[in-house]
Amino acid sequence: MHPGKLASLLEALDSEQRQAVWQQVGDDQEAAVLRHLTPQLAATLHRDHDEPGLEEALDAGEEHLYTQISSVREALEAGKFKRIGKVFRHMHPAKAAGLLEALPPDERSAVWETLDNERAGKVLVHLHDEVRANLALEMDEDELVAAARKLDLDDLVDLIQALPKGSGRQLLLSMDEIKRQQLVAMLSYPEDSAGGLMNTDHISVRAEVKVGSILRYLRLLEDLPDHTDKVMVVDRKNRYQGVLRLSRLVTSSPDAKVSEVMDADFKPLDVELSSQEVARRFEDLDMLSAAVTNEQGELLGRITVDDVMDIIREDSDRAIMNMAGLDDEADMFAPILTSTRRRSVWLGINLITAFLAAWVIGQFQGTLEQIVALAVLMPIVASMGGIAGSQTLTLVIRGLALGQVEGGNAKALLVKEMGIGLLNGLLWSVVVAALAVIWFGSWKIGGIIAAAILLNLLCAALAGLTIPLILRRFGIDPALAGGVILTTVTDVVGFFAFLGLATLLLI
Amino acid sequence: MHPGKLASLLEALDSEQRQAVWQQVGDDQEAAVLRHLTPQLAATLHRDHDEPGLEEALDAGEEHLYTQISSVREALEAGKFKRIGKVFRHMHPAKAAGLLEALPPDERSAVWETLDNERAGKVLVHLHDEVRANLALEMDEDELVAAARKLDLDDLVDLIQALPKGSGRQLLLSMDEIKRQQLVAMLSYPEDSAGGLMNTDHISVRAEVKVGSILRYLRLLEDLPDHTDKVMVVDRKNRYQGVLRLSRLVTSSPDAKVSEVMDADFKPLDVELSSQEVARRFEDLDMLSAAVTNEQGELLGRITVDDVMDIIREDSDRAIMNMAGLDDEADMFAPILTSTRRRSVWLGINLITAFLAAWVIGQFQGTLEQIVALAVLMPIVASMGGIAGSQTLTLVIRGLALGQVEGGNAKALLVKEMGIGLLNGLLWSVVVAALAVIWFGSWKIGGIIAAAILLNLLCAALAGLTIPLILRRFGIDPALAGGVILTTVTDVVGFFAFLGLATLLLI
Repeated sequence: MHPGKLASLLEALDSEQRQAVWQQVGDDQEAAVLRHLTPQLAATLHRDHDEPGLEEALDAGEEHLYTQISSVREALEAGKFKRIGKVFRHMHPAKAAGLLEALPPDERSAVWETLDNERAGKVLVHLHDEVRANLALEMDEDELVAAARKLDLDDLVDLIQALPKGSGRQLLLSMDEIKRQQLVAMLSYPEDSAGGLMNTDHISVRAEVKVGSILRYLRLLEDLPDHTDKVMVVDRKNRYQGVLRLSRLVTSSPDAKVSEVMDADFKPLDVELSSQEVARRFEDLDMLSAAVTNEQGELLGRITVDDVMDIIREDSDRAIMNMAGLDDEADMFAPILTSTRRRSVWLGINLITAFLAAWVIGQFQGTLEQIVALAVLMPIVASMGGIAGSQTLTLVIRGLALGQVEGGNAKALLVKEMGIGLLNGLLWSVVVAALAVIWFGSWKIGGIIAAAILLNLLCAALAGLTIPLILRRFGIDPALAGGVILTTVTDVVGFFAFLGLATLLLI
Repeated sequence: MHPGKLASLLEALDSEQRQAVWQQVGDDQEAAVLRHLTPQLAATLHRDHDEPGLEEALDAGEEHLYTQISSVREALEAGKFKRIGKVFRHMHPAKAAGLLEALPPDERSAVWETLDNERAGKVLVHLHDEVRANLALEMDEDELVAAARKLDLDDLVDLIQALPKGSGRQLLLSMDEIKRQQLVAMLSYPEDSAGGLMNTDHISVRAEVKVGSILRYLRLLEDLPDHTDKVMVVDRKNRYQGVLRLSRLVTSSPDAKVSEVMDADFKPLDVELSSQEVARRFEDLDMLSAAVTNEQGELLGRITVDDVMDIIREDSDRAIMNMAGLDDEADMFAPILTSTRRRSVWLGINLITAFLAAWVIGQFQGTLEQIVALAVLMPIVASMGGIAGSQTLTLVIRGLALGQVEGGNAKALLVKEMGIGLLNGLLWSVVVAALAVIWFGSWKIGGIIAAAILLNLLCAALAGLTIPLILRRFGIDPALAGGVILTTVTDVVGFFAFLGLATLLLI
């Protein structure tokens, strides 16, 4: 539409519709249209651009998203979609992803629509699976395909795996022949294996070539894949021979042969290695990138440290979230019903253990009727055991994660933990006993609670060590189920010891 | 001593002393000595080398320390220190460090003594602060100095910071003038800041130089510092201008000027940036290394991604350990008394909250005397609230860590969490009520516990969101104190609501 026409249209509309239409005007046309408008109208429409705030707020807080979330949400309420679009285009994709995840669903979609496909693709990579899949589904197929075109293969694989089967397949089919074949190959490996992590953009050279010709070859490529710190050395059957570090390449004489300057001892990663294992290798050997090979020793691709950092971060996220029975990929603003369902499972499991503890108490109703003080004090016994046990549990879970706890030293650890349980048990049983005597003026109750606490802390140490080892044996993640089982034990033992002793000695 | 003499001595000794002496024989002498021994004696002494097991076990389980800990401990019991020394010398330092930390103190020291200084230095780097300091103190000064000589500056800084003041200073004084000055400069920055993380081994070049001469210059250096993926570009006043990536260097023509091929937009890190912030930058921008500059823009050093990976790992460790009131650097085999003291603090804090809950129950002794069923059921109300609350708490703590939760979206999040609390509250209050009615045959008790659980789950959602935000405001780590405060709230509210309602409606 001609700028003049558009301008007169804008003048004809009421302010609200006008805003709506104005948001549709392309950046290129803007100036032209503004020229055709009455000054004050031009001013009102143009205001939100000159207005300070958003950009500043977003640049200022570069280290934190703090204050930015509010700025974006205000701008959204004011309907300044254009400006938000601009701001997000200038933001680093990772930061944009972080901001998007911090927005409630509606606002998230609103911002998402302002992003062009290329940018959207870059942002998708940095989103958590759940959010990523939802936003990807909000795009129509062509947009998604256009966005996906710009992605690295490994990111593309992640995206396809995060999408529902149908849309994933469509995305796959939309790729050109070569890319599709590579993708299919990569998709055939589990997501959390070296094969699922690797990228196929590595550069490989032959051992018999001279450094000089390698340099000429690289200059022809003009620009190397991201995070290229080494090129792979292979034989004519593409079997992995070693690596040639760029730092070595630039320091060797052009006449030297690759075979003389390459690092042949640099071990490749097996394509079936688990992602945790890949991460540990990278950490232990301080690698920036590593080759991935199959059983035949053929070079399949490479894994770069940036992907490994993501693994480490996700693992720690998962560990922490799992302890509370949460799904680490869960979207902070997932629909209430979805979150309720997810969390109710954990509450249900806990309910069973809670009723188990209640049943134990129920066995001593007669005692409780006679000495109500016991009902007052019994939670203390249980909770002290729970805290002490979770300390041991956490230590052991971390030890297992680092591979530092196993049959070989479990006994030594048990001795130590029992020792701590004994000392802390003696210390706190005395304190609690004293308080109980002061409160209820009964030496017997004091003695009974002291004994119960000491006993519970010893059981807590035993349970805290053995539960994760047993769960591990059964292939269950100790971080996930350990806590619930432990508190069940400490509750049951605590209530039973305290009320049982009371029944024996007081009734 | 002449091999022959040594041999006859060995024959004179009883088998135990013989073993002891034999362990002292240097690898170089061994063969010579063995030649002078009677065949069968030579065989017995030489056996433990041919004997399979240790090496195999340690190579086999390369991905895990599993089965290795046992192998090492068995070898230790058999007194085969020599072989262990050899095995540890061939092992990657990080792996050796992991194994050492998995050993009880005595055995740890025994293995430690078998390591030569150079190896010991490399291993020290990979140990946790506490273990590192203890083992370093087991070495006499010269050994420690010799070991430290081999370390990178940033690792040396870590070591000095981990050591007691006295030994740290001595180690510092033992360094040559230049190194000491660099160290003092680096030590002046907080351990968890960019300054504390940086290394000063970067290579810097001038913008006006040609690529060709850079290449010649690098060839003269022969080998570059570890993890060199880029060289820094500075002006004649050493002010940071940008970076020149090796991947760009090798692809540009030798006649091009550095200024034409360097990346001037690549932002340096301020020397005072917090380590968490450094880690986030590396993750968001997928950097392999970054320059560190001061306010004047002068280049001070560089941070490499391998150190950043350690930060990420340590942060996640700390978060998980803190939740249980444990010190993340704590040595798994720290002396029992030390551990007891550390953990008793947390137990003490918990005791206060436990007595608070008990006090609330105490207010309703009259009610409990009349209806003992309440004493049986009350822990269920408290524990359901605790679990639901910790789910919200964990979600918010993680959101804060990612910078995705703040005033700007707290309200939206509160609405969501309260919604989940309401739905799960309704669901589980009905279930619990039903069970309570079946168990105690009282509709009133069923209704009361239902109301109490619903109320407690709503409070749990509110507390789970607000507690971390408030702690954060006061600069307290929510992961550390959040859990205890939350359970205090859910216990108190749970007991008060349940027993209070019962007192009103049943008495």
